[in-house]
Amino acid sequence: MNAPHDLDALLKARRRPVPEAMLDALRERFGARLSTALAVRQQHGRDESPFDVDPPDCVVYAESNEDVAAVLALAHEHSVPVIPYGAGSSLEGHLLAVQGGVSLDVSRMNQILRVNAEDLTVTVQAGVTRNQLNAEIRHAGLFFPIDPGADASLGGMAATRASGTNAVRYGTMREAVLGLSVVTATGELVHTGSRARKSSAGYDLTRLFIGSEGTLGVITEVTLRIYPLPEAVSAAVCFFPSIDAAVQTTIQIIQMGVPIARCELLDAHAIRAVNLHDKLGLREAPMLLMEFHGSDASVAEQAETVQEIAREFGGEDFEWATTPEARTKLWTARHHAYLSALQTKPGCRCVTTDTCVPISRLAESINESVREVEEAGLPYFIVGHVGDGNFHLGYLIDPNLPAERDTAERLSAQMVQRALRLEGTCTGEHGIGLHKQGFLVDEAGAGAVQLMRQLKAALDPKNIMNPGKIFASAP
Amino acid sequence: MNAPHDLDALLKARRRPVPEAMLDALRERFGARLSTALAVRQQHGRDESPFDVDPPDCVVYAESNEDVAAVLALAHEHSVPVIPYGAGSSLEGHLLAVQGGVSLDVSRMNQILRVNAEDLTVTVQAGVTRNQLNAEIRHAGLFFPIDPGADASLGGMAATRASGTNAVRYGTMREAVLGLSVVTATGELVHTGSRARKSSAGYDLTRLFIGSEGTLGVITEVTLRIYPLPEAVSAAVCFFPSIDAAVQTTIQIIQMGVPIARCELLDAHAIRAVNLHDKLGLREAPMLLMEFHGSDASVAEQAETVQEIAREFGGEDFEWATTPEARTKLWTARHHAYLSALQTKPGCRCVTTDTCVPISRLAESINESVREVEEAGLPYFIVGHVGDGNFHLGYLIDPNLPAERDTAERLSAQMVQRALRLEGTCTGEHGIGLHKQGFLVDEAGAGAVQLMRQLKAALDPKNIMNPGKIFASAP
Repeated sequence: MNAPHDLDALLKARRRPVPEAMLDALRERFGARLSTALAVRQQHGRDESPFDVDPPDCVVYAESNEDVAAVLALAHEHSVPVIPYGAGSSLEGHLLAVQGGVSLDVSRMNQILRVNAEDLTVTVQAGVTRNQLNAEIRHAGLFFPIDPGADASLGGMAATRASGTNAVRYGTMREAVLGLSVVTATGELVHTGSRARKSSAGYDLTRLFIGSEGTLGVITEVTLRIYPLPEAVSAAVCFFPSIDAAVQTTIQIIQMGVPIARCELLDAHAIRAVNLHDKLGLREAPMLLMEFHGSDASVAEQAETVQEIAREFGGEDFEWATTPEARTKLWTARHHAYLSALQTKPGCRCVTTDTCVPISRLAESINESVREVEEAGLPYFIVGHVGDGNFHLGYLIDPNLPAERDTAERLSAQMVQRALRLEGTCTGEHGIGLHKQGFLVDEAGAGAVQLMRQLKAALDPKNIMNPGKIFASAP
Repeated sequence: MNAPHDLDALLKARRRPVPEAMLDALRERFGARLSTALAVRQQHGRDESPFDVDPPDCVVYAESNEDVAAVLALAHEHSVPVIPYGAGSSLEGHLLAVQGGVSLDVSRMNQILRVNAEDLTVTVQAGVTRNQLNAEIRHAGLFFPIDPGADASLGGMAATRASGTNAVRYGTMREAVLGLSVVTATGELVHTGSRARKSSAGYDLTRLFIGSEGTLGVITEVTLRIYPLPEAVSAAVCFFPSIDAAVQTTIQIIQMGVPIARCELLDAHAIRAVNLHDKLGLREAPMLLMEFHGSDASVAEQAETVQEIAREFGGEDFEWATTPEARTKLWTARHHAYLSALQTKPGCRCVTTDTCVPISRLAESINESVREVEEAGLPYFIVGHVGDGNFHLGYLIDPNLPAERDTAERLSAQMVQRALRLEGTCTGEHGIGLHKQGFLVDEAGAGAVQLMRQLKAALDPKNIMNPGKIFASAP
């Protein structure tokens, strides 16, 4: 396992700056929508990852497929890196300009192009955020379930194969996307998939671009499955005597096939943080935050089953949030866990993990990770989409103390190696980015990563699309 | 649209026979598991498609990953085509040796390698069939839902992105597969995915091989999601005054979000055929064959909702099949529809369509297709996974009458063009194979097909993997 060494090399990669001729051409086409201002470049040169890299050479604000194609045609001609930028919420360094180049901001491509309520599909531009989409379709009794916490752009969510709290029932972006419009690395607009629910027509280009982290092309439009708002929705919290008891309850829920919509774990540290931040007054003990969707009868039946399971493991009586306002308060607090935790240690940064394991291995995966971080003495918190076998342990480190970062990276590496032994993955939903390239080789094997490199070389022969992400550039 | 012309060229492609040196090497390694007997070659040189092509030069029976790798290494060295062969149930000519070469039969790779009941996953060799898997796991209260009708091999089902009757609730092979073992075109064994339910670790190689129709490598092992047998299962048939009424009912069921497990249409012709074949005595009128899965309460609730919807469109009272035996009889009849229909016109062959459209377009898609075939006067039948917007119209043609084939192909082309106008796909589940290559270009566009060709060239530079399928060989 050599992720840290790879990382150093990646962060010091040779830069391929935008030449003056290309800047002139961009200026001519985009006018004020091209920026070389330091503040704008700096804003586009960072994300939620803990790395510091020089910013991109310029930022272009695209407003159409043609804009994106024009940038890529120029970048291809000049062999200049292009980094697609949506909402800036990556946790793994996807947006960092490690080789310089153009940050291609698609946040102004924010039109909801079509809502086909009768087919439960929508088509949106890549810069539309999930909250924007839900605000638009709620009045029609519809919703889009994928919820990674941040108000991410749907193009970015597709590019990182995002998921989040509802994935246990509704799947991830892998399942949610029916089709894409993509501008290829040579500047050509192609469309993948269709509005049909299924197809066997040729290679699955849609799934190839989902999770490609901007390294194969720029996603400009996304066609998504949406759902009717359930007849009944109920959220409940349940406190447990230990993390293990909460996890064992989750395992049982999944193994029994209960169609739970959300099943989130927060440990006492995470609850302490959201209590401080959102003034909630929740008990600071391991907690499952659950949501049930369905008909009135089905929601009642699911809740009863889950309450029974929880009691077997020492869980207490459910506390219910049945009104939309009460539910929103709880889920907002859940989504604030990351930022709330950062505020518990002033000036800290967070090294976040993202392993996902088969559900039967979840207890071992979490319990050992907790034991190790407790021994190491770093402050931490846990939140988890435990219904999927996925959880995040955040190590809060002082960026000025290299020993703390080293400890966090060591613990993170131990956790990943354990997840791989347990037949899981190093990343459930955040992607590889800069940070997990060594882990990817450990997980997939050198042969599979070589196949990925061959695909990359075939579709992006000049390596201009978000170079240095997923794997280092040279094959 | 030029599918028929492409087809002629494909069927007359230059053959790349297996050279003596390679035959010797195969004979040395495989002994009696290499066959050049005409009968064996002929058996492996056809499938359920209506095309006649010279058989492969030899057949190799693989029993392990190492066997497959050895064949591919030799084929790569000698630039010889390899056609993976599972159960032989392709409808689109996938198994035909249009360029000669080796038929690589994996049907003896039929071991169920692992059942992880607690995680609801299994790992099987590629030659295991879906019925074999279900027989093995039923005693543990588990089932594998994907059901394309034929007792297909799971490797073949992955390779064609198959689905079938349960897809409306449980998804297709795209959703069912967690990971694969694949031998690449250069003879290297790689593993994709993991047993985790979700992952963002690099390019989605799993989904790239699913639906690749044997053109990128040989799938040797498949890790699948399985499900607990539902607490309650009920099947019902409902007769309608017209196909349109049955389709409108289906549309309403889906739009209301009823979690129906199966929703199949049979027209009067299909019912007449299965009545003759299975001595069923069903009324020969448009019929929905439905199945509901869930708790007792949920099944009752779903059935009540659907009965109400059906009545709105003139549907009659449900006739229930609640015992396993009664259900099996109905589903067996459904699965016999294709063979039963063939027997209604002695000596005929069947040209089968496979369009899939957004659910709101299904009525137009079916009604127009019925009108056209009625006008043309060809015998036909309709079966459909209508809950997905997918249906099959089978044209029964006399293979000795070119005019009948021409009529069937013309009707099929009209149906596909209509499906594409309605934002659907030319193939919901059968794949492109030989027959639909022109349609693929019409559907995906030349740019997207060019991307597919680039991927193929990157992973299979000598074009040995099932050449001539999905797209003609030369880029």
